[in-house]
Amino acid sequence: MTQVRKKDYPVESVGSLMSTHFVAVPDYYTVGEAIQLLRRQAMDTQSKYYVYVVDDRLHLKGVVPLRYLLSAADERKLVEIMTPKVISISAEADREEVARLMREYDIVAVPVVDGGGALVGVINADDVLDIVEEETREDFHKMASVGLMTTGLREASVRLLFQKRVSWLLVLVFVNIFSGAAIAAFEETIEAVVALVFFLPLLIDSGGNAGSQAATLVVRALATGDVKLRDWSRLLGKEIVVAGLLGLTMGLAVLLLGFYRAGPEVAAVVALTMLLVVVVGSLIGISLPLILSRFRLDPATASAPLVTSVADVCGVVIYFSIATWYLGLW
Amino acid sequence: MTQVRKKDYPVESVGSLMSTHFVAVPDYYTVGEAIQLLRRQAMDTQSKYYVYVVDDRLHLKGVVPLRYLLSAADERKLVEIMTPKVISISAEADREEVARLMREYDIVAVPVVDGGGALVGVINADDVLDIVEEETREDFHKMASVGLMTTGLREASVRLLFQKRVSWLLVLVFVNIFSGAAIAAFEETIEAVVALVFFLPLLIDSGGNAGSQAATLVVRALATGDVKLRDWSRLLGKEIVVAGLLGLTMGLAVLLLGFYRAGPEVAAVVALTMLLVVVVGSLIGISLPLILSRFRLDPATASAPLVTSVADVCGVVIYFSIATWYLGLW
Repeated sequence: MTQVRKKDYPVESVGSLMSTHFVAVPDYYTVGEAIQLLRRQAMDTQSKYYVYVVDDRLHLKGVVPLRYLLSAADERKLVEIMTPKVISISAEADREEVARLMREYDIVAVPVVDGGGALVGVINADDVLDIVEEETREDFHKMASVGLMTTGLREASVRLLFQKRVSWLLVLVFVNIFSGAAIAAFEETIEAVVALVFFLPLLIDSGGNAGSQAATLVVRALATGDVKLRDWSRLLGKEIVVAGLLGLTMGLAVLLLGFYRAGPEVAAVVALTMLLVVVVGSLIGISLPLILSRFRLDPATASAPLVTSVADVCGVVIYFSIATWYLGLW
Repeated sequence: MTQVRKKDYPVESVGSLMSTHFVAVPDYYTVGEAIQLLRRQAMDTQSKYYVYVVDDRLHLKGVVPLRYLLSAADERKLVEIMTPKVISISAEADREEVARLMREYDIVAVPVVDGGGALVGVINADDVLDIVEEETREDFHKMASVGLMTTGLREASVRLLFQKRVSWLLVLVFVNIFSGAAIAAFEETIEAVVALVFFLPLLIDSGGNAGSQAATLVVRALATGDVKLRDWSRLLGKEIVVAGLLGLTMGLAVLLLGFYRAGPEVAAVVALTMLLVVVVGSLIGISLPLILSRFRLDPATASAPLVTSVADVCGVVIYFSIATWYLGLW
């Protein structure tokens, strides 16, 4: 057993999370010698699910699950029974990376190596569970434009809840002022055809909804590592096709609705707007998290309300521009 | 070691997830006998981090971590070194419960008992990681009104993405029709004061945003077990206070904006509406997940877009009702 001093690693790194209590056994040991060594150890080490086999420079040569060690004959060499290809992780890696490794390889502990390849610690699944829960909660709250909250909802004070929610709501008011300004610019159009206002909530909501769907899919996929930044063009290409199909479907649906409620001219304007706002909203939703991620900002900040508010401004401009243009043709 | 036949447990239960390979040792064994027994076993058992001590009816008496067993003297009795209070879980319990136990007690394996208290299996942390990730993704997607997707975003086909998104978007169109109908009912008011339309996106978005914040906090708190159904009245009481403060702050912010843009009358209407829509939106956001949960439906179905759309309808009615009433006083 070796205990290495835990260095000062960055806050969200693997190094800051790892335990420095682990079992490392020299590679020339036999099974019997390893068990003797283990049994002589005090009980203060946290986790001995695996015995790590190392050379004299503490480089990881292999791993032996404790249960394999116990069932092997005393005289066998460790190098004969060990699994030589060890999954390990750098102490500098992001801690979310560990959860990914454990899920992918179904292992409950991952050895941690430093820049030189020497074994310096181990990370256990129970610690990772805490992280996964914590990071997921962060992402969830950000997606709803709630500030970072480490307290549970039940214990959170009124003051804390107010503070965490008010700033984002006010930011979104600011974004929405542009929607108001856009509408003001089209005052004449609205006065001419008040029926256009009936469809305003429907159109801007649909763009925002399509956008927040797209944003959530991307934010989650980035968080779990399913999608990387280099997939941008591929994702964008696919999203244009998906959003186009969604827009066409939605456009057809509101064409009937518009025709029934306000006649053929308004129906045409509404349907065309729907197609465009769904496509534009979806592209905003898919791009915003990727842009944030590109500039090393947290993609989850591209929250559903933010995407919705930005998509709203675009929706208003698209809607009344088309209407004004179409009105000129009437 | 005992192997029990895995019964047919419900799909999302602990029983369906557990491994039936575990190590159970009679309670009259010594450490030496237990190690002998372990070493005679074949290596086909999946996880032996813990040795479970049982009586002759397979009732769990205690647990000995494998590492403690190894460091104890041969002649000691298992009952002397075991931890007598064992954390266990019922095979009928929901599988999310296991993640909760592991996080709370920092353990990597939880023994599973049947209705009669007999040990029937064990659940390991690596299996739980898969579940946590899966259930979190489900909740994320539902919160954005995307259908259940088990495929990663990168691999998902255009057809799958379209299918998972279109149905919810169309449902939300349906909800939004009520917003349109509400606006149509107030056509005269709008014709009298077109400036009211400038503030429409701002007001309905703010209600929706406050609501989706509240909904996300509740959905996540329900998923992690931080909040139970019986906390409803307490949560609702706290939310009324928080939402009231948020509404006042937002109302003051738009009072200035409204005054500058459309004069004192519209400003008063807009500010009063803002206060009310933020409170109403928040109460919808906090209640919808709890109501769904009460009827044993998935609270995450109370997605941000759904909450937003429902809050929008309320917002439109509140806004134009206040405006019409206020217009009569002008």
